[in-house]
Amino acid sequence: MTDARRPESAGWAERVRASFGRQSIMEHLGAELRTVEPGYCEIRLPFKPELAQQHGFFHGGVVGVIADSAGGYAGFSLMPADASVLPVEYKLNLLSPADGELLIARGTVLKPGRTLVVSRADVAVLKNGSERICATMLQTLMTLHGRSDGPGNRSRSTTEEQP
Amino acid sequence: MTDARRPESAGWAERVRASFGRQSIMEHLGAELRTVEPGYCEIRLPFKPELAQQHGFFHGGVVGVIADSAGGYAGFSLMPADASVLPVEYKLNLLSPADGELLIARGTVLKPGRTLVVSRADVAVLKNGSERICATMLQTLMTLHGRSDGPGNRSRSTTEEQP
Amino acid sequence: MTDARRPESAGWAERVRASFGRQSIMEHLGAELRTVEPGYCEIRLPFKPELAQQHGFFHGGVVGVIADSAGGYAGFSLMPADASVLPVEYKLNLLSPADGELLIARGTVLKPGRTLVVSRADVAVLKNGSERICATMLQTLMTLHGRSDGPGNRSRSTTEEQP
Amino acid sequence: MTDARRPESAGWAERVRASFGRQSIMEHLGAELRTVEPGYCEIRLPFKPELAQQHGFFHGGVVGVIADSAGGYAGFSLMPADASVLPVEYKLNLLSPADGELLIARGTVLKPGRTLVVSRADVAVLKNGSERICATMLQTLMTLHGRSDGPGNRSRSTTEEQP
Repeated sequence: MTDARRPESAGWAERVRASFGRQSIMEHLGAELRTVEPGYCEIRLPFKPELAQQHGFFHGGVVGVIADSAGGYAGFSLMPADASVLPVEYKLNLLSPADGELLIARGTVLKPGRTLVVSRADVAVLKNGSERICATMLQTLMTLHGRSDGPGNRSRSTTEEQP
Repeated sequence: MTDARRPESAGWAERVRASFGRQSIMEHLGAELRTVEPGYCEIRLPFKPELAQQHGFFHGGVVGVIADSAGGYAGFSLMPADASVLPVEYKLNLLSPADGELLIARGTVLKPGRTLVVSRADVAVLKNGSERICATMLQTLMTLHGRSDGPGNRSRSTTEEQP
Repeated sequence: MTDARRPESAGWAERVRASFGRQSIMEHLGAELRTVEPGYCEIRLPFKPELAQQHGFFHGGVVGVIADSAGGYAGFSLMPADASVLPVEYKLNLLSPADGELLIARGTVLKPGRTLVVSRADVAVLKNGSERICATMLQTLMTLHGRSDGPGNRSRSTTEEQP
Repeated sequence: MTDARRPESAGWAERVRASFGRQSIMEHLGAELRTVEPGYCEIRLPFKPELAQQHGFFHGGVVGVIADSAGGYAGFSLMPADASVLPVEYKLNLLSPADGELLIARGTVLKPGRTLVVSRADVAVLKNGSERICATMLQTLMTLHGRSDGPGNRSRSTTEEQP
């Protein structure tokens, strides 16, 4: 799993940041896009009470949201300039309680491809200065060629994208 | 997949509603617990711009949050009064764009068990009055016996719950 | 999940049966393609000691093999005549022991699409004349256009299929 | 994901090998248990025509069988002497064609727990002396305490194991 990762085109980092900036859910949750490298993306989410499940930890679904985004933008960083990324599916194992002050999701491309990209994301929770893995995710993404991820471009779905 | 579903104890509907009420993320997103029956749960989430991904549809992770909750509370409805529900893992296929004014997640228990429960959830999006399936989820839950889902009870994780 | 299912081209049933016949693992295990309809496929596998795990039941991996095939051929039945089907990913929950004399895997297309197809399969085990669900699977398939599933056609992978 | 891995009891390697030896499907396929360490297991499977899908590669389901076993025995190696391992669920991404002369599945425990264990397995295919990743799997296992994995012990299922 150590293929070289090189972005297909210049401007990939700006495209990732611009797309993230258009995901209003990220601002609503308070998530921050920290690092983007070719085939890698790190997203951070500080705890606030609005993100909790019934025991006061980060909700498992919220863990899924940032894992999904970290893996998705890891994939998007390798796509051509005129493409959008569409999530096809993901699966998440919750390994320990997301009990802490900060979630850190690190997404990595396992396998790039022209149409499909497979990513993994690990999510750690930071508590009193030490990190602990709380979830791991495996994900399939689709490249939509010829549909750039612009603000006015409402892409269609993974299974119906073509006429 | 047609086992009779009967709750293990009285008060199950109240326990589901009380637990849902303690998940502050649900209020933050605007989700509503609509129907609870033994082994079944329906959650609704009206669209608002804060829930969007970069193309203005419901974010795929948000679809996951309510699918996860609908399946989880379907399972919790069958658990004993002194138990908590812990999510172990879930996997979600995004079938079509979550483009509409309302998400409806319907969770159903596929297989109850003393320790583990398997649920499925289908998520539909309502647009101009007609429903369309946008995602389907398969999920594993764990019953934590002897740890009621009360407000002061911070349950531990699925893989470390025991001493 | 009730879209009409119509095959894209004549000869779909013959193509499914011919492809199944080329999967030598099916003969090695003893699996039989029972029913093929547009978007539906049923595969049966009688028990023999060679298929067992350590407790004498059908091995969970064997349950996965026929679930994967039933879902895959359900999808293939809807694909054009010049296409191959490639498995992208699948996830399987084992719901009860596969203890019995016959496995029956029933695959159904949940969502057809030009490039990607999502299928579900349920696997039942027959014991003393009564059926019981032992597993359920969710699966993503890819249509490889322009590469018919012929005997001399060694298709490439899902993530590298294109130049 | 670097917790120390120590087996709970002496004799773990013998128990893993004995259990593998009782899985007659492994002999039927031709799989060999190569390495067992605490929390790690490697299984190898040489190609033979009986294992092929319709294009002459290893069948995706066969890749799943040995991934499932490698992850499962990685988990079993850490369980107490009086316990059995039960597979709960697994999910597999097929990353590239399993085209080669040998499959190598390497299972690793991501998260041990008293009741549940989460494993990962990567499967490589060896062709002309060089390895290439063809699949990755994420898996949940259950520890059945008090039911040793002996020859006469027909364990029950993950969701019904308890009275």
